[in-house]
Amino acid sequence: MKKLQVAIIGASGYTGAELIRILLNHKKVEIVELVANSNAGQKIEQLYPHLIHYGLPALKKIEEVDFTKIDAVFGCLPHTTSQETFKKLLSDPKNSHLKIFDLSADFRLEDVADYKKWYDHEHVAQDLQPQAVYGLCEIHRNKIKKSNLIACPGCYPTSALLPLIPLLENNLIEKHDIIIDSKSGTTGAGRSVKQANLFCEVNESVKAYSVGKHRHMGEIEQELGKAAGAKIEIDFTPHLLPINRGIISTIYAKVNPKFSVADIQNCLQTKYDDEPFVKIIDGEPNIKDVVGTNFCVIAVKKARTADKVIIVSVIDNLCKGASGQAVQNMNIVFGFDEKEGLEFAPLFP
Amino acid sequence: MKKLQVAIIGASGYTGAELIRILLNHKKVEIVELVANSNAGQKIEQLYPHLIHYGLPALKKIEEVDFTKIDAVFGCLPHTTSQETFKKLLSDPKNSHLKIFDLSADFRLEDVADYKKWYDHEHVAQDLQPQAVYGLCEIHRNKIKKSNLIACPGCYPTSALLPLIPLLENNLIEKHDIIIDSKSGTTGAGRSVKQANLFCEVNESVKAYSVGKHRHMGEIEQELGKAAGAKIEIDFTPHLLPINRGIISTIYAKVNPKFSVADIQNCLQTKYDDEPFVKIIDGEPNIKDVVGTNFCVIAVKKARTADKVIIVSVIDNLCKGASGQAVQNMNIVFGFDEKEGLEFAPLFP
Amino acid sequence: MKKLQVAIIGASGYTGAELIRILLNHKKVEIVELVANSNAGQKIEQLYPHLIHYGLPALKKIEEVDFTKIDAVFGCLPHTTSQETFKKLLSDPKNSHLKIFDLSADFRLEDVADYKKWYDHEHVAQDLQPQAVYGLCEIHRNKIKKSNLIACPGCYPTSALLPLIPLLENNLIEKHDIIIDSKSGTTGAGRSVKQANLFCEVNESVKAYSVGKHRHMGEIEQELGKAAGAKIEIDFTPHLLPINRGIISTIYAKVNPKFSVADIQNCLQTKYDDEPFVKIIDGEPNIKDVVGTNFCVIAVKKARTADKVIIVSVIDNLCKGASGQAVQNMNIVFGFDEKEGLEFAPLFP
Amino acid sequence: MKKLQVAIIGASGYTGAELIRILLNHKKVEIVELVANSNAGQKIEQLYPHLIHYGLPALKKIEEVDFTKIDAVFGCLPHTTSQETFKKLLSDPKNSHLKIFDLSADFRLEDVADYKKWYDHEHVAQDLQPQAVYGLCEIHRNKIKKSNLIACPGCYPTSALLPLIPLLENNLIEKHDIIIDSKSGTTGAGRSVKQANLFCEVNESVKAYSVGKHRHMGEIEQELGKAAGAKIEIDFTPHLLPINRGIISTIYAKVNPKFSVADIQNCLQTKYDDEPFVKIIDGEPNIKDVVGTNFCVIAVKKARTADKVIIVSVIDNLCKGASGQAVQNMNIVFGFDEKEGLEFAPLFP
Repeated sequence: MKKLQVAIIGASGYTGAELIRILLNHKKVEIVELVANSNAGQKIEQLYPHLIHYGLPALKKIEEVDFTKIDAVFGCLPHTTSQETFKKLLSDPKNSHLKIFDLSADFRLEDVADYKKWYDHEHVAQDLQPQAVYGLCEIHRNKIKKSNLIACPGCYPTSALLPLIPLLENNLIEKHDIIIDSKSGTTGAGRSVKQANLFCEVNESVKAYSVGKHRHMGEIEQELGKAAGAKIEIDFTPHLLPINRGIISTIYAKVNPKFSVADIQNCLQTKYDDEPFVKIIDGEPNIKDVVGTNFCVIAVKKARTADKVIIVSVIDNLCKGASGQAVQNMNIVFGFDEKEGLEFAPLFP
Repeated sequence: MKKLQVAIIGASGYTGAELIRILLNHKKVEIVELVANSNAGQKIEQLYPHLIHYGLPALKKIEEVDFTKIDAVFGCLPHTTSQETFKKLLSDPKNSHLKIFDLSADFRLEDVADYKKWYDHEHVAQDLQPQAVYGLCEIHRNKIKKSNLIACPGCYPTSALLPLIPLLENNLIEKHDIIIDSKSGTTGAGRSVKQANLFCEVNESVKAYSVGKHRHMGEIEQELGKAAGAKIEIDFTPHLLPINRGIISTIYAKVNPKFSVADIQNCLQTKYDDEPFVKIIDGEPNIKDVVGTNFCVIAVKKARTADKVIIVSVIDNLCKGASGQAVQNMNIVFGFDEKEGLEFAPLFP
Repeated sequence: MKKLQVAIIGASGYTGAELIRILLNHKKVEIVELVANSNAGQKIEQLYPHLIHYGLPALKKIEEVDFTKIDAVFGCLPHTTSQETFKKLLSDPKNSHLKIFDLSADFRLEDVADYKKWYDHEHVAQDLQPQAVYGLCEIHRNKIKKSNLIACPGCYPTSALLPLIPLLENNLIEKHDIIIDSKSGTTGAGRSVKQANLFCEVNESVKAYSVGKHRHMGEIEQELGKAAGAKIEIDFTPHLLPINRGIISTIYAKVNPKFSVADIQNCLQTKYDDEPFVKIIDGEPNIKDVVGTNFCVIAVKKARTADKVIIVSVIDNLCKGASGQAVQNMNIVFGFDEKEGLEFAPLFP
Repeated sequence: MKKLQVAIIGASGYTGAELIRILLNHKKVEIVELVANSNAGQKIEQLYPHLIHYGLPALKKIEEVDFTKIDAVFGCLPHTTSQETFKKLLSDPKNSHLKIFDLSADFRLEDVADYKKWYDHEHVAQDLQPQAVYGLCEIHRNKIKKSNLIACPGCYPTSALLPLIPLLENNLIEKHDIIIDSKSGTTGAGRSVKQANLFCEVNESVKAYSVGKHRHMGEIEQELGKAAGAKIEIDFTPHLLPINRGIISTIYAKVNPKFSVADIQNCLQTKYDDEPFVKIIDGEPNIKDVVGTNFCVIAVKKARTADKVIIVSVIDNLCKGASGQAVQNMNIVFGFDEKEGLEFAPLFP
């Protein structure tokens, strides 16, 4: 049977390289086009020597690609560029068959006014936005199945939404006073060359950044609001960690007085019991236990104060937080086994 | 003038080595005795080759030391051992002149019942406890001056108390819903040999531990309670970071509706304006900016939710969080310039 | 078709965990027994929480295992223990069908006197030694195919022998003045709990160790000697790196004056052209480019001095340097595709 | 007494920041000018927040500085820029009193043809070159005392020359077959923003670079040649380590058959016995044992092969390998205690 023909647009970044890693392991997919406008003409192994073994296609400009031969497109572009690119691509009726898996933030916010608020830029593909589905697989699987444009969630949001959405849907926690203290590996900053991301600046240090104003709050509040059936405002603080991969989110929430921490644990256990990639544990989630995988591991803990619960959640930001979840979405859309290509065990240590 | 004669008991651990590093730089002090019972007879450079250059005294058992020739004793012992050791030492009237700077948790909790509750062990030096002063220099300087037994604060508590105490004293934040999310370098776990502290277990990972029950909550609540004039319960989550030194604490608190985030910033600015080791900044505190120093750097940030403030605080856990603060306490007690021995600039990068 | 039934003896160490990671990905193998005497009765996920997802068998004592139901055994035991264990196991005629893949050093040295010299201990399974084959796959594939006892090479030796053997076989380099300067990630030290392997001792540092006397010189000299048809003595210096996985070996050798550096490059290119796991590149081998994989990547460089060549070689010490090569050997012995279970792309970054 | 008035030109890089760290600790020096052309007008703490505590002068363009008020100038400029800058500065007779401590490579090579060969650029300050002294303190102290232009050695050369020069001077090792395998922390690459120096590219990896052609070979060969009284060619391979600071050089040399390894050890012991910053030890030099200090720690080891010696040497590349040695040179030139400002103990861990 002919394999699914896949193109990756923006293949030169870390999420592009991670998509390649995963898709090389996927039995039903063939990577046929790698697009990277500013590196067009180069081989991918010139950018990523670790990919020398695979005979991958050379990098192209987007206008060199014949998308009529492509089934699925992964977008790994910066925000706003993604809107422009897919607007143009889909404006050609020949490309209407394409399934788009966008890893940028460009189609995650349902209300284009929210996009403008958080990204400080007018949404430039407003016609497309209504078609987009927020691709948090375990939550929106049914909508994803029927969609042509999957807005894959951000890394921080994935780590926070998977535990919080079921709790708000079931009214187990209060809608106010939700605090998400997240810590991310430096791949989250991408491969762009900035002084703040130099080895010597990041190593042996941790800092909080964008305190009180990080853009990922927009999509977190949107999804929590839908789960709660009410407007939600959260506090969220991201921190930069001196590790390559992984996010740990420590979440503080107020327990609805009618319920207990045990109820919260049971709710998540029940919700995710059959999910291959989400695991509720009794111990202490450790970033290392999910590195290189599509797992989200979650623990529910009693707080010191009687009215609160502390939830700890870990993912690999590049995998479940980006490229892995994008492939999981592709598996959903094309009816493949949802685990296909994603079954590697964690690389430990 | 004769230098102050100093003994370090428990010199084989990281806080012992850090005391040596600092005191070697102190013009008015001479390290005359290093006690490490299980390594007695060895040279310190057998345990710490980096100390080979200094002609330090050999390690002894405590019973080999003549404390009548000592002015100040630093205790770097495990908890309960510290109570036993100083009880015995001070039971001899010949030693009543000693000034004790204890880095363990053994004398930090004023109520011996609290000690039993948090450390799961009866306090074995209850007679001594009333003499002890909690050695948070900037807060209790006047009491410290007059004390013979300084219970130097824990590393996590130091990072949290310095910003929070002035705010509670001035009623700028609410007494409830204080959340302290702290992340510490691995020196905080000491030099004891445990699988969880192996390089390959810690590197490229972060985990939360002792969630909802870490012992440092006892002293944090005690000191916040004194500042607030009321019983305080907090939530505190420690995390283990793959770095050697440093703590970053991200603190969430509710602003008293009569005040603003600007009032909070001003309060801390005013409180610490003349303090050499506490600095309020507008930017983003970075662990790296205090490594190797006795500084605590603090920033006050508006939260996303209208009723909260986010405070970020960084220290070097081995220095301001342990040995540096102990030396600062010694400077206070003996009337030296408080900065003496502690004026090294951060090692960056 | 029934899967190959596999037992891992000594499953509690890092090479055991790495074997599990690889074999979970192997389509023709089932892990049916995990032996770890001191942890018998525990689940593997109590030792390795990252393995919670896989329903692996509980840990057993070796005497609880019925080896008549096992086809292949991987030994991950300390040296001397391995000899004792396999001697006893194979002394029972019911177990004579077993194929043994031993990851220890116990059967690598063909001359038992060499074993005594390097390991300072009499060989205790001297009857077995003649059956053993040194399991460097690309070099001894034909012998491995027919063997029941594969002595899998050490990590450092693998990185050095793959480039050097073809050069000595073809007389392209001199037999004297071979210098191997190797640097290894800390997983090479195993999971045993020693002060020198604590995070804070290893992090932000590098040291050379066992200078002039590391035991791996024994097997390197044996294999180089066989390739050269003459006794060989080398210099080899191992260094401990603050990374989890990976070895880089920088090798200095004198070029046979009849040949050139280009001849050396060509020789290796030709030798390894069809090998799936060895790659000769023109660029700079980077440990990161092989992490998590069974690849060995090699570059040949002109030295500054006219008579020498510099060869740089990288592997993942836990994979091609241990468990990956063991699985590759199993694939050879059982006639599977040699790449089966080993085709994951590098985890980058 | 008036303090020495010091200017740092090129203060925005890591060696500039390290000079500030050291000079803040120097009792006889005042930092009066910080020059950084492209950041002129900014405060140094905008570039280096860890320097916020010190009230340092704002950054200026070089033409804004009145050098008649300056006694000593440290140059932390890129190569060729340094030649241009000091040529221009010293062409003004008003500046002839200046003592220049140049940390670039621009004045290290005595033969301007060598400069062109290694740096691929004509020397543009050839008139100045004869005045320059190679500032390896322990070797050229007497010449340094009388010089106005000190070319401070490179980091790799410092680690290799300190052990090798006495051995060649005393004919204890052969002049051929000297191999220097060096590994450096990433601060050696400076603060310039390059993809290869991003955290995620460097972390968890090591690579060799510039194999067979690194520019530091020029100055190593020059200085070894002077010691040997003959032309010397060496092999030198630098590696990039995922640590901030530190170099370890593992050196292989052939012992002159008339002498032994013990003679080599004795020679170095004797040579450096009275030197405050060079220490010969019996154990294993560890980068960590010198971080933050001006020490060079050296060990001499028997090789496996009878005709060789292995020497291991560690320094902090930013301190003894750059700014620390520059300050030591300044102390020599101005007749200060050579240890002044440089007496901090290692930061361990």
